[in-house]
Amino acid sequence: MTETAYDTVIRNGTVVTAGGRFEADVALSAGKVVALGRGLSRGRDEIDATGNLVLPGGVDTHCHIEQLSGAGVMNADTFETATRSAAFGGTTTTVSFAAQHPGMRISRVMADYAALAERGALIDHAYHMIVADTSGENLDDVARLIEAGHRSIKIFTTYDKVRLDDLSILNVLDVARAHGAMVCFHAENDGLIRWATTRLLDAGKTEPKYHAASHPRLAELEALERVCRFSEATGQPVVLFHVSTKEGVAIVRAARARGAPVFAETCPHYLLMTEDVLDRPGREAAAVMCSPPQRQADDQEALWQALALGDLQLVTSDHAPYRMDESGKFSNGEDAPFNRIANGMPGLELRLPLMFDAMVHGDRLGAEKFVEFTATAPARIFGLANKGHLSPGADADIAIWDPAARKTFADNDLHDNVGYNPFSGREVHGWPTTVLSRGETIVQDGDVLARPGRGKRIEMRRSPAMRARAPVV
Amino acid sequence: MTETAYDTVIRNGTVVTAGGRFEADVALSAGKVVALGRGLSRGRDEIDATGNLVLPGGVDTHCHIEQLSGAGVMNADTFETATRSAAFGGTTTTVSFAAQHPGMRISRVMADYAALAERGALIDHAYHMIVADTSGENLDDVARLIEAGHRSIKIFTTYDKVRLDDLSILNVLDVARAHGAMVCFHAENDGLIRWATTRLLDAGKTEPKYHAASHPRLAELEALERVCRFSEATGQPVVLFHVSTKEGVAIVRAARARGAPVFAETCPHYLLMTEDVLDRPGREAAAVMCSPPQRQADDQEALWQALALGDLQLVTSDHAPYRMDESGKFSNGEDAPFNRIANGMPGLELRLPLMFDAMVHGDRLGAEKFVEFTATAPARIFGLANKGHLSPGADADIAIWDPAARKTFADNDLHDNVGYNPFSGREVHGWPTTVLSRGETIVQDGDVLARPGRGKRIEMRRSPAMRARAPVV
Amino acid sequence: MTETAYDTVIRNGTVVTAGGRFEADVALSAGKVVALGRGLSRGRDEIDATGNLVLPGGVDTHCHIEQLSGAGVMNADTFETATRSAAFGGTTTTVSFAAQHPGMRISRVMADYAALAERGALIDHAYHMIVADTSGENLDDVARLIEAGHRSIKIFTTYDKVRLDDLSILNVLDVARAHGAMVCFHAENDGLIRWATTRLLDAGKTEPKYHAASHPRLAELEALERVCRFSEATGQPVVLFHVSTKEGVAIVRAARARGAPVFAETCPHYLLMTEDVLDRPGREAAAVMCSPPQRQADDQEALWQALALGDLQLVTSDHAPYRMDESGKFSNGEDAPFNRIANGMPGLELRLPLMFDAMVHGDRLGAEKFVEFTATAPARIFGLANKGHLSPGADADIAIWDPAARKTFADNDLHDNVGYNPFSGREVHGWPTTVLSRGETIVQDGDVLARPGRGKRIEMRRSPAMRARAPVV
Amino acid sequence: MTETAYDTVIRNGTVVTAGGRFEADVALSAGKVVALGRGLSRGRDEIDATGNLVLPGGVDTHCHIEQLSGAGVMNADTFETATRSAAFGGTTTTVSFAAQHPGMRISRVMADYAALAERGALIDHAYHMIVADTSGENLDDVARLIEAGHRSIKIFTTYDKVRLDDLSILNVLDVARAHGAMVCFHAENDGLIRWATTRLLDAGKTEPKYHAASHPRLAELEALERVCRFSEATGQPVVLFHVSTKEGVAIVRAARARGAPVFAETCPHYLLMTEDVLDRPGREAAAVMCSPPQRQADDQEALWQALALGDLQLVTSDHAPYRMDESGKFSNGEDAPFNRIANGMPGLELRLPLMFDAMVHGDRLGAEKFVEFTATAPARIFGLANKGHLSPGADADIAIWDPAARKTFADNDLHDNVGYNPFSGREVHGWPTTVLSRGETIVQDGDVLARPGRGKRIEMRRSPAMRARAPVV
Repeated sequence: MTETAYDTVIRNGTVVTAGGRFEADVALSAGKVVALGRGLSRGRDEIDATGNLVLPGGVDTHCHIEQLSGAGVMNADTFETATRSAAFGGTTTTVSFAAQHPGMRISRVMADYAALAERGALIDHAYHMIVADTSGENLDDVARLIEAGHRSIKIFTTYDKVRLDDLSILNVLDVARAHGAMVCFHAENDGLIRWATTRLLDAGKTEPKYHAASHPRLAELEALERVCRFSEATGQPVVLFHVSTKEGVAIVRAARARGAPVFAETCPHYLLMTEDVLDRPGREAAAVMCSPPQRQADDQEALWQALALGDLQLVTSDHAPYRMDESGKFSNGEDAPFNRIANGMPGLELRLPLMFDAMVHGDRLGAEKFVEFTATAPARIFGLANKGHLSPGADADIAIWDPAARKTFADNDLHDNVGYNPFSGREVHGWPTTVLSRGETIVQDGDVLARPGRGKRIEMRRSPAMRARAPVV
Repeated sequence: MTETAYDTVIRNGTVVTAGGRFEADVALSAGKVVALGRGLSRGRDEIDATGNLVLPGGVDTHCHIEQLSGAGVMNADTFETATRSAAFGGTTTTVSFAAQHPGMRISRVMADYAALAERGALIDHAYHMIVADTSGENLDDVARLIEAGHRSIKIFTTYDKVRLDDLSILNVLDVARAHGAMVCFHAENDGLIRWATTRLLDAGKTEPKYHAASHPRLAELEALERVCRFSEATGQPVVLFHVSTKEGVAIVRAARARGAPVFAETCPHYLLMTEDVLDRPGREAAAVMCSPPQRQADDQEALWQALALGDLQLVTSDHAPYRMDESGKFSNGEDAPFNRIANGMPGLELRLPLMFDAMVHGDRLGAEKFVEFTATAPARIFGLANKGHLSPGADADIAIWDPAARKTFADNDLHDNVGYNPFSGREVHGWPTTVLSRGETIVQDGDVLARPGRGKRIEMRRSPAMRARAPVV
Repeated sequence: MTETAYDTVIRNGTVVTAGGRFEADVALSAGKVVALGRGLSRGRDEIDATGNLVLPGGVDTHCHIEQLSGAGVMNADTFETATRSAAFGGTTTTVSFAAQHPGMRISRVMADYAALAERGALIDHAYHMIVADTSGENLDDVARLIEAGHRSIKIFTTYDKVRLDDLSILNVLDVARAHGAMVCFHAENDGLIRWATTRLLDAGKTEPKYHAASHPRLAELEALERVCRFSEATGQPVVLFHVSTKEGVAIVRAARARGAPVFAETCPHYLLMTEDVLDRPGREAAAVMCSPPQRQADDQEALWQALALGDLQLVTSDHAPYRMDESGKFSNGEDAPFNRIANGMPGLELRLPLMFDAMVHGDRLGAEKFVEFTATAPARIFGLANKGHLSPGADADIAIWDPAARKTFADNDLHDNVGYNPFSGREVHGWPTTVLSRGETIVQDGDVLARPGRGKRIEMRRSPAMRARAPVV
Repeated sequence: MTETAYDTVIRNGTVVTAGGRFEADVALSAGKVVALGRGLSRGRDEIDATGNLVLPGGVDTHCHIEQLSGAGVMNADTFETATRSAAFGGTTTTVSFAAQHPGMRISRVMADYAALAERGALIDHAYHMIVADTSGENLDDVARLIEAGHRSIKIFTTYDKVRLDDLSILNVLDVARAHGAMVCFHAENDGLIRWATTRLLDAGKTEPKYHAASHPRLAELEALERVCRFSEATGQPVVLFHVSTKEGVAIVRAARARGAPVFAETCPHYLLMTEDVLDRPGREAAAVMCSPPQRQADDQEALWQALALGDLQLVTSDHAPYRMDESGKFSNGEDAPFNRIANGMPGLELRLPLMFDAMVHGDRLGAEKFVEFTATAPARIFGLANKGHLSPGADADIAIWDPAARKTFADNDLHDNVGYNPFSGREVHGWPTTVLSRGETIVQDGDVLARPGRGKRIEMRRSPAMRARAPVV
């Protein structure tokens, strides 16, 4: 044992993991965590974390980057801008979407998307395959891609261009079960959304605030119930994205109680915003328009309770960046009716500070659960074995948080390419002042130190969460 | 008051209605019940009902007569044969289906079907509109037909040619709400049935017994949940046809508890048969093959319990007659795989004797509930104001049951045109020895006395059950 | 058939029963209904009911008459005053309580109570036995009393002097099962009420309005759950009195779904009043103080919904009359803390007009259900075979309602001995202008025509509702 | 940093914690874990764990040691024999019971019990207070004892001498809330057990196998429901001991869903035995008789599922040792009826090997959850901050498991004083070959190295689980 045992030692911080908090130094070598303990040997580099919290970097398994929307609008972020923004917010791993549209061969979609990521990403990443066309050789492609470590699929039950019908969904679930992958769902009933939208537009209700009514909570409930039934039938595990309602939570809870392999997620804007944000003046409302829409205060309480009980396991950003101009939100003009304004808002950089503020400073569930929902569980469920925790052997992806820092969000203070901050004006306590990726400091006191392309694609392993049950037939 | 006050008096019987049982004479005039009481004045005709039960004639609101199936097979019965069979079994009102197929104009379908009924029916009748094509002027037609007293629509969620997609279903529900009608559903998830069927056939499982597995209970559950959500969203009352599972019952119960205007039905073959009937030799299995399939013993108990609690309100026959030859069951040959054999079995004549035996002689719920489920509730829910009860002013549609009669069903003893009896070999206690329609004796001791065409079409009134809630949007 | 066939004919009214409504004359002879029909023969007496509704007289199976409370206060009504009041409100049968206190022999209690009833009652009646002491020969007495037609027992789970412990409750349930009786429960958790009361008084919260908080809804929920479990264990049917909460309704619904033979009741003051009536000035609050207390608006909706679904079957008055002086409400002085003011209020005369107004004139469930909840179901469940309906053979207990009548309740306009009307100021539409008991007109246009003592005790028969399941051991 | 940095290093093992598994050395100094990592500096002592699993020592929060039962029988184990047995099975912390009986002052009970523990225990320990008498100054005592770190109370709802009535339970919950403690429950309905027992004995059913029927599952369900309601009313967190039924699990799940601060436990004999063990010949049945009794296979599945979902958090032994002679099981003779045989069986030594075998070798939930349920969660919930995990700073209580070891239990191979093994004949895979307590090796390859009295009492801290909600009044 030489004097300088480690590449880096983060000294005197309080380590917080999903399993607990304790005072310890953290030693890193060759991009890995190698030891946690008191009075560890010296590192070539030493980082003083006195008074700070040393956490696994965030893992954001739901973010849209450099992706064509169903409506054909390219979102505002490249891998470079998106992962830069993520890193500033303490996130060190992204799982974004390679989106097939009908007619595209999915193997090509994935290859093209990998090239974009390789060129631009500052941090490590994996991708979900959005499967929108199961014809031809696409399902064989999917099987091969799963075996190559792309062990997650995303399916839409709504949005014209990309949604799958029930039988196609079941066929995709079969492929996932056969090869070992997770299948994620945007679960809203397409018919109910169209029905509601038509009724609203026919009644002359076109302003952004009607977006909420156009995605009735029943649309979420129906689709959640259906996907849970499909999971039961095929035995295939699923992740239900962005659950927004208290009844949705109850559906997830009931499905899990009867043994369905169902996991579920929510997002900061469902926990922290309510539907009345859509009742702001036009542009402001458009800025925070997303699907499903924000709901009511009692839904928020139900979501928090579901996180406490383990019915929801994930808090992700659903980062869906569209600029407030004709390139994004307003591709159909600023006066477009609510259903022709792009849905989504930035979140990669905001997710962790917002949740840290609510959970660590606020009265909600505490720091360990913060780590669990935003880093450990996403990594575990999607088979990112070396991410989301700080055990010896883990990748040295670390965010050092100053719990005393205070920051008030401004109109345009994010490091992505979206040009606005939907939480402008909100103050948060706590900030990730230093961020490391595989042992390398990539963000330090407001400066990004990493170059585009340094991020690596991570292979998803077959996780216990992906273990399927026997199908009913 | 002259000596002969009434056309007919049924003397000395025990009257049983949904509300109670009592000793009374029943006096009829001009086709109507005019009085119930002890020692009523004389009738021109007197019927001695000593020792017998005097009940409202049965109302069967789910029977397929002279109808082209989704697969293009004409069923075995004409109105003449079907209503003759019905009358022999104590049923005096049928509600069958005028089936639109895609491309047909529904107003024409209804007119054509009315002509068939007018020509052949021995008893009174109404029809549900099967809506399979909402394009063009069809929904305007539906609105007009509702206003003309065709206040019931049937929708399939499965079967290739006739099923509607979610948005079309919602549009039909809107029309029904606007004009005041009931909407009935064959609720099974089409995708799950296809998925299961393909998996079974691919595994070489082609015999009739695999029919059960090809309609997994989850297919019923998913579609019941979905239709309940659509009912909640639109506020439109619905009737869920042929609920077959205990979980299905729980879904109905939960929907009703949250205020959804949901009614539901089951059939004798779900109450009295289990899935193992499909494990008989090929032809025998084909004879009892229906959709959804028969289930398990604990499902039967749950269905009885749901009837007791009021979660299910209706027991109908789902009479779906196909001969055991190439004209019916075996239009694709006797060796056809399970999915190419016609589904359905006769029930118009069997429904009441089977239920009477189970409920009145057996230990199940009793005679009043027998009348309620098989006559009073069907008439009440579908707005057949003068049918299904014996209050003064009601149509004199009456079945006089000999509770001591015993009958063992034979292979081919029904009066329809199907040529087999799926309950062959089963003994029942109790039989409707005399049946009256509008005061006229139409069946007497095994002889039919009515001529084809005497039956009249009944206009459905807007029933309290059809009262809609406000839609969510 | 002579010209004068019947004693009385009620002519040209609209008959409403639990099963339907129809235009018919009603013929009565020898105190019985003998015929319903159009153009019936003449009666010696003729009553013109043109424009009126002819209903079965009300059956009130929950009323306290000439009874010592648990706290030792005699209530304000004798059989004479109570049944006079009942008759004015259209009620023709009462089931009140013969209350054992610890140390009393129950056979003696019953005999004494029967003497009071025989002397005073204007209308027919039966009694529940309140069992408060199971020691000695009391359970043998109970068995004998059941066999003598006293087929209903009442048990309190709270109130010091009269409540039974769990084991005693189970023993009473066993006796009821062995001999065929119903067992009714005042179900509130005694410990929770005492705990809450002590905490409130300790905090100086002594005014009447704290009565509501002193009977927390959880006290009802716990006791309902417990009694349902006891019913399941012993197989003995039970009636849960005065359910007041939405969660209570859900407990009843769940117990029934798992097959427990559980029936349940609510009262007009839970359907029509909310907790804020207790926030009135002292005397006014004391006037409407009852147990359990009135609850919230959403509880009311849940109770109506439970009536619609059949989870609740009975609407009774819980008539519990205490004068607003030291003989009643204020036996401990007007300044007594909330827990030393007598609980209860008059309802025998109010129940039917209030419910008629809400259900027949208002938008709630309709006239048939009004009859069902207030007359037919109470009679059926408690084995009063000839009461609560108008079938030929039934007792001619009839209320003729003028639906166009309007009445605004005044401070002291009831015909009982309580001296106040808790619904003073409320207007109702509809009033029972003529009331018959066994064919005899007892109330006519505001005059009582019956003499005390004409009412007869009715033997309870073993009803289907009393049929027990097998006990678990 | 000197060459010899640590007291002890456990080298080359696989560390398993509730949060994950990883290859790491574990360094111990001064009785604490100080570092986990790869290639840590040398220890004065080195333990080679190659091929082995390094786990936190087990924490058993439900064991009866040196305690008088409700029936007045002293159990078979002293602290010396019980903790020796525990250590052999890999358990390094016990939480047993200081049992008040009516008439005893609880402060004295605690002091006496502490003296027994101090004299005998080989491992660290805390105690629950069994509160059976709330009169006089006992509740003040309880408050003081809580503040002194005895932050757990146990209440019985059954067993004659020790059970509390509802109001006393609520008063204890209030004290716990005011001072910060957990309250644990043996939750079975006393009345139902007595009722069932009497019925069985009256029917001559006296053999041990009737023990199961004498504790009907409904007794558990009722009491679980009641305690959940009391927790809701008072806002006080509770732990429901030894949940044994699938319906019980559903009750816990429902209570947690509505926000009640309810935790729950089960035991290996509910997960691994079914009721038929009581149908063995008399002595064998007596050996495995416990309360609640073992249940059915589908209950086992529900318990496993509830562990998976987080509805149950704890797996403890409920070690309740009675010798198979007149000193224990048969204090009323070998021919005593089932209700006079002592309930309970040994489990301190068996719990971890049985669960390791089922969870790590078997297909159940895996090693991390094994640690969670048997060590981490018990310590966390009961405020044993330095137990149950291996973070730097934790007590060095460690069990090193050889996963390849195999052991078949024999008739009398345990190290306690009970004299029999209820799992005799069962083979388990995996055994804790080396056990450390505060860094000291106390068991090594079948030899105990620790002396009685070395164990220390641990103060319970106020855990997040103990955080109360506001009471409803």
